[in-house]
Amino acid sequence: MIRKGHHGLRPGQTMHLSITTRLRWHCEEPTDSLLQIEVAATSGQRLLANAFEGTPAGHVTRVPAQDGIGERIWLHQEGDCTVTYAAEVEVLGRSVALETLAALPPHRLPGEAVPYLMDSRYCPANRFSPFVDEEFAAFEGGAKVAAMRDWIAAHYRYVPGVSDASTTAIDSFVERRGVCRDYAHTLICFARAAAIPARFASGYGADVTPQDFHAVAEVWLANPEGVGGWHLVDATGMADTASFAQIAVGRDAADTSFLTSFGQADLRELAIEVREVASLNHVR
Amino acid sequence: MIRKGHHGLRPGQTMHLSITTRLRWHCEEPTDSLLQIEVAATSGQRLLANAFEGTPAGHVTRVPAQDGIGERIWLHQEGDCTVTYAAEVEVLGRSVALETLAALPPHRLPGEAVPYLMDSRYCPANRFSPFVDEEFAAFEGGAKVAAMRDWIAAHYRYVPGVSDASTTAIDSFVERRGVCRDYAHTLICFARAAAIPARFASGYGADVTPQDFHAVAEVWLANPEGVGGWHLVDATGMADTASFAQIAVGRDAADTSFLTSFGQADLRELAIEVREVASLNHVR
Amino acid sequence: MIRKGHHGLRPGQTMHLSITTRLRWHCEEPTDSLLQIEVAATSGQRLLANAFEGTPAGHVTRVPAQDGIGERIWLHQEGDCTVTYAAEVEVLGRSVALETLAALPPHRLPGEAVPYLMDSRYCPANRFSPFVDEEFAAFEGGAKVAAMRDWIAAHYRYVPGVSDASTTAIDSFVERRGVCRDYAHTLICFARAAAIPARFASGYGADVTPQDFHAVAEVWLANPEGVGGWHLVDATGMADTASFAQIAVGRDAADTSFLTSFGQADLRELAIEVREVASLNHVR
Amino acid sequence: MIRKGHHGLRPGQTMHLSITTRLRWHCEEPTDSLLQIEVAATSGQRLLANAFEGTPAGHVTRVPAQDGIGERIWLHQEGDCTVTYAAEVEVLGRSVALETLAALPPHRLPGEAVPYLMDSRYCPANRFSPFVDEEFAAFEGGAKVAAMRDWIAAHYRYVPGVSDASTTAIDSFVERRGVCRDYAHTLICFARAAAIPARFASGYGADVTPQDFHAVAEVWLANPEGVGGWHLVDATGMADTASFAQIAVGRDAADTSFLTSFGQADLRELAIEVREVASLNHVR
Repeated sequence: MIRKGHHGLRPGQTMHLSITTRLRWHCEEPTDSLLQIEVAATSGQRLLANAFEGTPAGHVTRVPAQDGIGERIWLHQEGDCTVTYAAEVEVLGRSVALETLAALPPHRLPGEAVPYLMDSRYCPANRFSPFVDEEFAAFEGGAKVAAMRDWIAAHYRYVPGVSDASTTAIDSFVERRGVCRDYAHTLICFARAAAIPARFASGYGADVTPQDFHAVAEVWLANPEGVGGWHLVDATGMADTASFAQIAVGRDAADTSFLTSFGQADLRELAIEVREVASLNHVR
Repeated sequence: MIRKGHHGLRPGQTMHLSITTRLRWHCEEPTDSLLQIEVAATSGQRLLANAFEGTPAGHVTRVPAQDGIGERIWLHQEGDCTVTYAAEVEVLGRSVALETLAALPPHRLPGEAVPYLMDSRYCPANRFSPFVDEEFAAFEGGAKVAAMRDWIAAHYRYVPGVSDASTTAIDSFVERRGVCRDYAHTLICFARAAAIPARFASGYGADVTPQDFHAVAEVWLANPEGVGGWHLVDATGMADTASFAQIAVGRDAADTSFLTSFGQADLRELAIEVREVASLNHVR
Repeated sequence: MIRKGHHGLRPGQTMHLSITTRLRWHCEEPTDSLLQIEVAATSGQRLLANAFEGTPAGHVTRVPAQDGIGERIWLHQEGDCTVTYAAEVEVLGRSVALETLAALPPHRLPGEAVPYLMDSRYCPANRFSPFVDEEFAAFEGGAKVAAMRDWIAAHYRYVPGVSDASTTAIDSFVERRGVCRDYAHTLICFARAAAIPARFASGYGADVTPQDFHAVAEVWLANPEGVGGWHLVDATGMADTASFAQIAVGRDAADTSFLTSFGQADLRELAIEVREVASLNHVR
Repeated sequence: MIRKGHHGLRPGQTMHLSITTRLRWHCEEPTDSLLQIEVAATSGQRLLANAFEGTPAGHVTRVPAQDGIGERIWLHQEGDCTVTYAAEVEVLGRSVALETLAALPPHRLPGEAVPYLMDSRYCPANRFSPFVDEEFAAFEGGAKVAAMRDWIAAHYRYVPGVSDASTTAIDSFVERRGVCRDYAHTLICFARAAAIPARFASGYGADVTPQDFHAVAEVWLANPEGVGGWHLVDATGMADTASFAQIAVGRDAADTSFLTSFGQADLRELAIEVREVASLNHVR
């Protein structure tokens, strides 16, 4: 990981990302595979182009993904399966200083945020309550989340390959290392343990080195006008809102895998390229 | 646990349940507590009466609960908190023979069912794939779920008190014992490992001994007409659709706790009474 | 827990402890139970009196315990079993400043110390290597162990009742709390992760509040003359060599339980009294 | 894994094994590494030749290994380290029918066997008590161990590569698959849960395919003359006493790793060849 400086786009500025993904896997038998690799159309990012192609041409269905953000794509195929995806995305730079945001008391949270207070597969947040109560007691709201992010950045080492599909935030906290998913899981646990809703977002990041799918946490906080919403926080320091094109959200990585096969599947190739085409400057 | 015989209501029959719940806890400081104790209004059960009362009269808010089934109630209180709940519910007996139901291939599942294929806090379903593949290979669809239910009933012992908030389906599977939540978690893991969506439902059961909140699994299967829907399966044998009044659903017990406090809370009393008033016989 | 000041006996001073233990349990059927409650006769402590009594008078056998320190007592009994134990012990105050001790390189360790580098039931030490490498890199030998002890004392809270027979050092590290066994397990993990042999010692402590069995860690370090040996370290701050009467040693708590029953046994009473009779002052 | 038939040597027969091992690893810095790869000299096997060689010639020390069986070899080296080992071993065929052996009641076990009743790193045996009590209730002593072995053989699949240094018997039991260490860990848990001492033995097996280090369980049972001793049981079916040359014993795999480095070490080669030279037939 090479940490590059953040873009610090001014509000109103956008970044143009060009993304290509190539995924190849093999299924001995006809198998249902679930893909989550397409950039979602949301208020924070605009899709200029989006091309999804799979061979052999098999059965393809789409359903809405979690929280209505993006779609889940099912393929029913056999043998060698190749998927290529290309997108042009305009991401709106709307970085907000975390410290200016406030936490809502739980009883004022909207129904959609409440499930993100609960423990999930990789985020057994309750276990972290004593630590969080003690370590971050001096902070409130966005400043508390910023302190959590900084604690992780200071105490974790980014080590590709150390985590796998069974690694929880507890494992990462004990070993104090991981990749983006582990940083996000830890931050999610910390936030939930402080009664701040937190979810997991997968996506593409312009500054992710080596290039790969990226993952960040999102926390539900209210802006100075009292309006609640999800705010991206990346404890790895790799992404900010200006450089992160969101694919999907979920409780944690269990909800947002780029490829989930129901049957034997053997991943043979994963190639991702994310280029920053230009930072445009116009008012929305 | 004393297993009583099932009711075997004929389609069109209903059961009338009278439910009272009393919950008392103590918070040293002003604390937000989340309650999920009210019977939900759904197509399968009709609320004839519903009375929720809390003292001291504090701040109370309600938000829709998971999948739009029932509501989550927030209380913001301090000191001794008492909640009493009383309901009269008419539950529609629509027991369906599991064996007549079919599993949909994953790529034909509706978007709402897909999240229930994923691993969750207490249900790391993927870990059970080798076991499920081998043990239940001979069965398909509802017959497979029935075989899973019967395996659990045959191999688990119902032992009150052996599980707590950190007990996962793996713990239960190794120790081969648990209470209703553990039976449900295990069945959910088995079903998801076979690509059958499964969720957790909390509720009140007429035949639960000793009387307490109850929990069952629900699986997404299609009826002979090809219409998919959630179907209740209780590996403990305590409940069937005719005797179970649903409160809430979720990925697992993490989503449906009857009381979740964000701060120190000390549960001092929990009293539940569920009486079967009568089985009515009329056509809907 | 009330932490009292340490005794700081000068070398040559001893402390006289008077210990009584009463243990009562019930076995429905004839059951083998293993007791480890007697103070061991070692070079660091002298038994002035030792009385063990069990009713009903059943089959009793004794075998040497781990590392030849003390004995394991087997009882084969049925029904209500009561054991009383009374001892007068003279403990030699030989507190050594940890900082003056050196770690031996692993290849110079005696065979008896090597097993205490390995992972054990409650001490999966390898998992802590990244944390230990980073956090304690500035220290060597006894100073490193002292830094580990101080880190635990600073970051853990002593909370009776939070741990049980399944709680490992990982659980304690995540939750940052526990009782003496958990403090000891954590310190053992830290030391082993730094290639310093560490074992678990159970015993009686004069300053343990409330009175109960106590547990500490022992690390293998060399004194300034280069002579290796086990040195007591108590991260709870409750015990030092002058106030701790050792019962048994082991890899971790799994080896030193005061009562292990092979069959159903129901512990009904545990009463421990440890009084400091006098601190004598004579030369050995 | 290809299961070949067992040798079924008659008492008094021996098997002659020719073993070569080549191990290469790399340490960036001077590192202490612990090797356990030499066949031990025991009453059940005779070393005809034994050659251990390491390059670069570095610091080498030896200490007795667990239970006095074999030696642990320490190397203090840097850079590329190569170790070659060659041995000629005569293994005594003394296969005993498990069913003829009896379990001693715990209170009659010798002190050396008692630690092998306790939980260890990979063998949290207590967790298996409910399963073992129920599943193997019909059997006693050696017949019970045989039933345990057969249960594992029937329910586990041998799948190279599925386990790693963090895989416990619980993981294997849930996933019902593993390699030799996992089969042995499971059997050890089952035996200990039934109050039968069980330990882990590493070694070389003539019939292990692909060739690698092998591991089996040993249980403490008494022969028809009432004499207690350790008896080899291999749930994988790969080894029996006639074809297994023992290296070391321990609580579980944590005690018997072939290479444990205290520092960064990168294993680059592991080549093992075990040939059956001849089965000799002479009386001892």
